[in-house]
Amino acid sequence: MPRNDTVRALDWQGDHLKLLDQRRLPAETVWLDCHSAADTADAIRDMVVRGAPAIGIAAAYGVVLAARAAMARRPADWPAAMAADLARLRSARPTAVNLFWALDRMQQVVDSDPADPLAALEAAAVAIHEDDLAANRRMGELGAHLIPAGAGVLTHCNTGSLATGGYGTALGVIRSAWSGKGLSAVYADETRPWLQGARLTAWELVADGIPVRLIAEGAAPLLMQRGRVDWVIVGADRVAANGDTANKIGTYALALACKAHGVKFMVVAPSSTIDPDCPGGDRIPIEERPPEELLWLGDRRVAAEGAGAWNPVFDVTPAELIDVLVTERGVVTDFGGGGVRALING
Amino acid sequence: MPRNDTVRALDWQGDHLKLLDQRRLPAETVWLDCHSAADTADAIRDMVVRGAPAIGIAAAYGVVLAARAAMARRPADWPAAMAADLARLRSARPTAVNLFWALDRMQQVVDSDPADPLAALEAAAVAIHEDDLAANRRMGELGAHLIPAGAGVLTHCNTGSLATGGYGTALGVIRSAWSGKGLSAVYADETRPWLQGARLTAWELVADGIPVRLIAEGAAPLLMQRGRVDWVIVGADRVAANGDTANKIGTYALALACKAHGVKFMVVAPSSTIDPDCPGGDRIPIEERPPEELLWLGDRRVAAEGAGAWNPVFDVTPAELIDVLVTERGVVTDFGGGGVRALING
Repeated sequence: MPRNDTVRALDWQGDHLKLLDQRRLPAETVWLDCHSAADTADAIRDMVVRGAPAIGIAAAYGVVLAARAAMARRPADWPAAMAADLARLRSARPTAVNLFWALDRMQQVVDSDPADPLAALEAAAVAIHEDDLAANRRMGELGAHLIPAGAGVLTHCNTGSLATGGYGTALGVIRSAWSGKGLSAVYADETRPWLQGARLTAWELVADGIPVRLIAEGAAPLLMQRGRVDWVIVGADRVAANGDTANKIGTYALALACKAHGVKFMVVAPSSTIDPDCPGGDRIPIEERPPEELLWLGDRRVAAEGAGAWNPVFDVTPAELIDVLVTERGVVTDFGGGGVRALING
Repeated sequence: MPRNDTVRALDWQGDHLKLLDQRRLPAETVWLDCHSAADTADAIRDMVVRGAPAIGIAAAYGVVLAARAAMARRPADWPAAMAADLARLRSARPTAVNLFWALDRMQQVVDSDPADPLAALEAAAVAIHEDDLAANRRMGELGAHLIPAGAGVLTHCNTGSLATGGYGTALGVIRSAWSGKGLSAVYADETRPWLQGARLTAWELVADGIPVRLIAEGAAPLLMQRGRVDWVIVGADRVAANGDTANKIGTYALALACKAHGVKFMVVAPSSTIDPDCPGGDRIPIEERPPEELLWLGDRRVAAEGAGAWNPVFDVTPAELIDVLVTERGVVTDFGGGGVRALING
């Protein structure tokens, strides 16, 4: 693999899916084997694998596992026999649209009644995986083109190889900018409560030889005030037709701080993240995860017994705070003029 | 002690100072004994005691301990003999002005050449402590008066009994509003990296029977978008003459989010927190603490070896984002018109 791009989170073995267990990074590098669709759905729900594109790819392989099991069990009506597995995959996480997009694409293969369904499904899953990697490299080029040499950048959550089929979306742009014109500094915020920035982005960038400095999320406006950041670059879990973007909780706060400081705000996401049926951000369901993710740190209770918590894990950044959306099909800067619809229809 | 006000962080014993070790909350309630000024300075630096007013009070008692030791060692020139101790106290933390204010007030007692210096110094320290508690109750009334019945409030860091001589500044206003007209909800953000909100504010509110819900800092704008918060109420470590306010890192991000959502922003601080010699926020020194506070969680390394971190622990909120400053001398809403100077001179 090329320089600055050595990490992978998913590894299809032909008969099962290996997933790098991201809950255990950076302390341990452990791969988990998924032999069934149920294993895969559980891994998505429990965040063994996370990141909108990676979830979609994992789900696609999950359909292959579901089909194989259904064919063994009820060869005559295997498509009906895997309905429960598909429903389980579909309900694993609610916000990222890539999951539904990948499942719909796999369903189309089933519906096309191919001569060798298992081979066709496997080929479709592998194509989703490979297309994602290719899209990420393309977005890396398109996004890096917009960033001046020597810029300082800040990213949120993890949008790298760990969150995708490889290379990354926002982190792919940072990889390309770093390897190309060069950056003065790469900052990653920790990203509470799951600490994707501290645990995953730092690990991935260190592994790929890109120096990274962590900050607390609350320090981002001060970093901007000090002039150390020119671009904030983030991924997306769902982009509405008007450009409103759902992404990891804390993204909207960064966008507000960018606005106050004249720092540019870039969203990087494959076109599969765009939901043309969703007119605006207020229609995107926001996943709320258990309060324990805030009340506990690992196996230690951090907040007093009796305290409650509210734990939404995504928020929506309005299109008017976004300077540019980078997809593998091109970039959008004119959201008001229907730029997102033009991109997906064009 | 009255209802909703049972917690104390400092306990003067006549010959030594007991400090509730806030590093070990909420898991353990352990008191640490300071028998010398050096003990006290170390406790301030190491955040056994934290919160701008509490730091000032602890330092005042530290001067009593310094004077007693100096008198025993060099009775003829005890004021000179305690110079090193005073310097050590003064350099324990850089941002909160209350520390310097308290040390200056104690120095005035020394300079006044009292008949019984030790008794005079002890009386002055006790007065600083008691005055702070009284000021907090007064600010509680003044601040609560501004909050409508049934409002939702969000606070940052810990500004309660643990951060002060008792009752609290921002948390004192919340106590008063809760006990008085009533609030629909009290939210506390976790406050990375030291988790004062999760570890201290939640503990203190639970102890005092005030229901509290934690959020990740990044969730604050979504909470506002959902209309669940009417006021954000925070403390201060230093207020410049123009109203710019240094407070725990993350405060400025909250103020920006308030502005975007029409949520009111209140700073609550005793007049000792105002630095009349500081014209504006750009002149306030911002403490940076070790990167390890971000790279580690307790005894576990959370970020990969090789990752760096930037760990400023305060930021400055410009006066134009502050709706009201509540002090024990009254409230300021007109910052542009020199309201802060009028308050401290009036």
